[in-house]
Amino acid sequence: MRKCIATVSVSGTLTEKLAAIAAAGFDGVEIFENDLISCPLSPERIRDRAADLGLGIDLYQPLRDFEAAGPATLKHNLRRAERKLRLMERLGAGTLLVCSSVSPEAADDDELAAAHLHALAELAARHGVRVAYEALAWGRHVNDYLHAWRIVQLADHPNLGTCLDSFHILSRGSDPIGIEAIPGDKVFFLQLADAPLPAMDVLQWSRHYRCFPGQGGFDVPGLVRHVLNTGYRGPLSLEVFNDVFRQSDARRTALDAMRSLIALEEALDRRAPGPVIPTGFAFAELTTGTATAVRTGGPSAGDTVPPASGAAATLVGLLAALGFTRTGAHPTKPVEMWEQGAARILLNATGTEAALAAIGLETPDPAASVRRAEDLLAPVLPRERAPEEAPLEAIAAPDGTQIFFCRSGRPDHPDWTGDFTRAPAPPTTPAATTPAAMAPATVRPVPVSSPSSGCVTRVDHVALTQPWHHFDEASLFYRSVLGLRPLESVEVPEPSGLLRSRAMAGPDEGVRMVLNQARVGAGQTPWQHVALACDDLRGLARRLRAEHPGLLLPIPGNYYDDLEARHDVGPEIRELGLLYDRDEHGEFLHLYTITVGRVFFEVVERSGGYRGYGAANAAVRLAVQHARGAGTA
Amino acid sequence: MRKCIATVSVSGTLTEKLAAIAAAGFDGVEIFENDLISCPLSPERIRDRAADLGLGIDLYQPLRDFEAAGPATLKHNLRRAERKLRLMERLGAGTLLVCSSVSPEAADDDELAAAHLHALAELAARHGVRVAYEALAWGRHVNDYLHAWRIVQLADHPNLGTCLDSFHILSRGSDPIGIEAIPGDKVFFLQLADAPLPAMDVLQWSRHYRCFPGQGGFDVPGLVRHVLNTGYRGPLSLEVFNDVFRQSDARRTALDAMRSLIALEEALDRRAPGPVIPTGFAFAELTTGTATAVRTGGPSAGDTVPPASGAAATLVGLLAALGFTRTGAHPTKPVEMWEQGAARILLNATGTEAALAAIGLETPDPAASVRRAEDLLAPVLPRERAPEEAPLEAIAAPDGTQIFFCRSGRPDHPDWTGDFTRAPAPPTTPAATTPAAMAPATVRPVPVSSPSSGCVTRVDHVALTQPWHHFDEASLFYRSVLGLRPLESVEVPEPSGLLRSRAMAGPDEGVRMVLNQARVGAGQTPWQHVALACDDLRGLARRLRAEHPGLLLPIPGNYYDDLEARHDVGPEIRELGLLYDRDEHGEFLHLYTITVGRVFFEVVERSGGYRGYGAANAAVRLAVQHARGAGTA
Repeated sequence: MRKCIATVSVSGTLTEKLAAIAAAGFDGVEIFENDLISCPLSPERIRDRAADLGLGIDLYQPLRDFEAAGPATLKHNLRRAERKLRLMERLGAGTLLVCSSVSPEAADDDELAAAHLHALAELAARHGVRVAYEALAWGRHVNDYLHAWRIVQLADHPNLGTCLDSFHILSRGSDPIGIEAIPGDKVFFLQLADAPLPAMDVLQWSRHYRCFPGQGGFDVPGLVRHVLNTGYRGPLSLEVFNDVFRQSDARRTALDAMRSLIALEEALDRRAPGPVIPTGFAFAELTTGTATAVRTGGPSAGDTVPPASGAAATLVGLLAALGFTRTGAHPTKPVEMWEQGAARILLNATGTEAALAAIGLETPDPAASVRRAEDLLAPVLPRERAPEEAPLEAIAAPDGTQIFFCRSGRPDHPDWTGDFTRAPAPPTTPAATTPAAMAPATVRPVPVSSPSSGCVTRVDHVALTQPWHHFDEASLFYRSVLGLRPLESVEVPEPSGLLRSRAMAGPDEGVRMVLNQARVGAGQTPWQHVALACDDLRGLARRLRAEHPGLLLPIPGNYYDDLEARHDVGPEIRELGLLYDRDEHGEFLHLYTITVGRVFFEVVERSGGYRGYGAANAAVRLAVQHARGAGTA
Repeated sequence: MRKCIATVSVSGTLTEKLAAIAAAGFDGVEIFENDLISCPLSPERIRDRAADLGLGIDLYQPLRDFEAAGPATLKHNLRRAERKLRLMERLGAGTLLVCSSVSPEAADDDELAAAHLHALAELAARHGVRVAYEALAWGRHVNDYLHAWRIVQLADHPNLGTCLDSFHILSRGSDPIGIEAIPGDKVFFLQLADAPLPAMDVLQWSRHYRCFPGQGGFDVPGLVRHVLNTGYRGPLSLEVFNDVFRQSDARRTALDAMRSLIALEEALDRRAPGPVIPTGFAFAELTTGTATAVRTGGPSAGDTVPPASGAAATLVGLLAALGFTRTGAHPTKPVEMWEQGAARILLNATGTEAALAAIGLETPDPAASVRRAEDLLAPVLPRERAPEEAPLEAIAAPDGTQIFFCRSGRPDHPDWTGDFTRAPAPPTTPAATTPAAMAPATVRPVPVSSPSSGCVTRVDHVALTQPWHHFDEASLFYRSVLGLRPLESVEVPEPSGLLRSRAMAGPDEGVRMVLNQARVGAGQTPWQHVALACDDLRGLARRLRAEHPGLLLPIPGNYYDDLEARHDVGPEIRELGLLYDRDEHGEFLHLYTITVGRVFFEVVERSGGYRGYGAANAAVRLAVQHARGAGTA
């Protein structure tokens, strides 16, 4: 029989996947939509590439939540289907898969579902495409394969059939004998997967996935409150079976456990003072590595990626291109301050590579913030400080990032920014004291002045990739020490795995962080990034594309084909190379720079109260970064 | 409040765990039974160690499936409880946890359950111990915390109370408000854990844990047969969402996928010839490393572990001590043959360390075996063979182990053993051709003769540790290429994680293999071992303990305390340092040697048709090996 495989089943970029699948002797593929959207090749070139490898493109599944929706959604769905059918003609894919809807909007109405599928099949017929309708095991109303088949019969269109999937049938315990009642020519496709049976078991859940209070989804404090109301005064004892904790460092896990109980006790005590919540970012500090001196001055138009050894130069070029101005230098440390609006970036010419080494957080009371962190077992970092310098207290986050507590520009507290020399650095200043300091002679060309009034207004968020086995620990750390709350947790496919990502924010969203979980077992250095808020991203993008196109991460055309099928956006987004997302509150525009060492910049513009982080676009970014060989998150 | 943690929540040996827990500031621990059994310290010394660290031992849970059992089991349970209560006095642990029974034998009878718990509480009172009864979320009849509390009320004994566990209550969606109806002085203990909510979701199962047909638990061929009966002649397409495959090498995963479809097609075809099933082990080949020459002659009494550089000498010493005789040497390769009964071990003085590099399998038709392997995409290994040598075909298993297909001592096929020189090697034979060959002068002292008639009869099984992301691939490989069937799949706790282990065997159990899954993300070299069948293990153990005690892996006394509480075994097992298991068919005695490089030996004696592999004892072995620093599986 003809043998196919979905591209989602193997790792890599789409072209890597096709090569591996062809080498194993398959006849065809199902192209998974994310793989196509992230691919820089046009649909025609993907079709040719597959054909050269002897592979047909047997299936494409671009539509979700199609049938039995309301009239407005139906209209949108058919418009989207029309675009996707044109894409399938370009791809040479003859069968379109539609899974049963999981949308709360879907009606429990087989006649309506059949009518919608009939309309889709009619449209598909004009493109020479067949539609295969499949019951998802967790479909809202249609979750049984025989139910899907009844709807196909009702719709009664030659271009409409059913798709059978062993997972969706067998995971529900359905009897597959019923399949034999379906005529073979109406089975348009057969998808196969096996699965280990015990994955659904509460026993497995209990033995492998427990975590410390505050790291999961249970209301543990609520339960404990009931127990205390009985008069119980015995111990609180953690009994946690967790595959990750079993293989992590015992001392670290034990501290994490104790932090969880301290936070739990606090949650039980209505009079507890609680965290000192930071109100914003004072700065983000990037190391540039000591290998090269910082070369200043923005890059010129048409710049391409500089060699890795020029990390400092590239970072300086990036900052200048983004509109930052060098506003100060530290008198005794190889650190420069760059500013734009309320955003401050410190460049520190130390370290082994370009990386996000520290963040400064504005807090109403830096000393109280440190005491709070100590109470929650965070390591307080020793500070080397000259007598005349402002106190600047710092703790270490679980991934080693230094967190400074600042109170900038307030009369009630010494201002750390006063430690920086604001006068232009003279060209012949003696070298800084540290051996590998940036040579002051090289920092001359950029004028030292007050912060520029560009479009960047502040740091929107920082994203830190955590080692895979410390992800829950980091989440509890930021929650308990800084009072940040987890906002959303998503999984983003990347070419070499799934990236788990959790955003956290303070109550007023003054401080936002994104924690990404590095791939299981990956030895690679994880990425980090600083996202800058901007009030005219279109203007910035236009200027960057004209003057420094090599500093922008290129976005594939397939992304825009899909975006335009999903949303009613104009051609400007594509022309400017921006990315777009929306939620129920508002819209989000963003762009990414190239990666330098471990770090890159994002620039974002939120409107209408958009609260997300563009996670829908992260898969595209990760695929492009992967293909460019820029490390692995 | 007093803060405790179960030792199962962190990694390491018991002493490592206690140190980490104390350093984090906890007040006490629940000692998990496995941790105690694997610990070489006596209960008194564990108590002292904990006390020195400022830790109390707040809870111990040595009993399972206690209440509402039949009369014979009750008698056995009370006898066991008596021993465990004495142990708790030695430990200084004041509270014993009993979870609700999951046994099919348990009666759905609250009065009976209460009577049994009353008897246990009465016994416990004599030892100054309190009994806390807890509802497991998957308890057979008692799975709700209020049900457990009703039984405690029925039993009405001052030494009996209830234990509440946030996981067991919240995972079932029970309302914790009911807790407040329990008097606080009858809540003897409170265990806390959180858990991520979506772990139980079919969506999560589908998106992360699908696998290729033949790797999971679904009857995929049965489903496909129904589809073919409809007349469907379209493609078989694999749509597999799997976190592991997403991050494995794409080429390898694609081959694994294709192998799964080839095996599936074969399963659908009643006329397919199927695998050529091997009937037994022809040999196991160990590399000794080229660093040192092989020193022969058995070690003398009282030997301790030789330095790592003497791997070859240690392996020779082990084989001689186990009763093997050197029976031949290869004329052109640095390979010796050692035999006992039908067991053959080849020592190959190449490689970088002592490791199990190859196995030879007896098959009715070696050429057909290789063709079969090729059909299933296994790499066939090129053989360098002198013209006069017997053909010996080999393939590579997924972990790189070489598998040779042999037909030994049959008139219808050239015999590979004939390539070995059976005459005693003369003391002055010229050096073998490979540069790092074993020096022939060093192989003199062991007489070359016919196989000795010791108690080892054959190779019982080999155990290979697979890289964590190739475990399913390996299982499908052995199943489809060699026709071995997975027999049992178990999870064994080891100090730094959980070891997943799956035994596979041919239909007549002539060939048995155990596949172990290395720890997720572990970079360490995995262990392998050769298990030898023996018909007088007590005799062998007695001789080894007298003559070569340093070659045996020492088993903690706590293991025997527990064994004697569970089974009616005599003192001989403890005296001889053996391990014991039983199943519904029969009994199993075994012992382990020390580890050399990556490899060690097990010697086993099966009686009465015991079909397992002593998995119940693997945790003890792993803990001892971990504490001795002998690598990590």
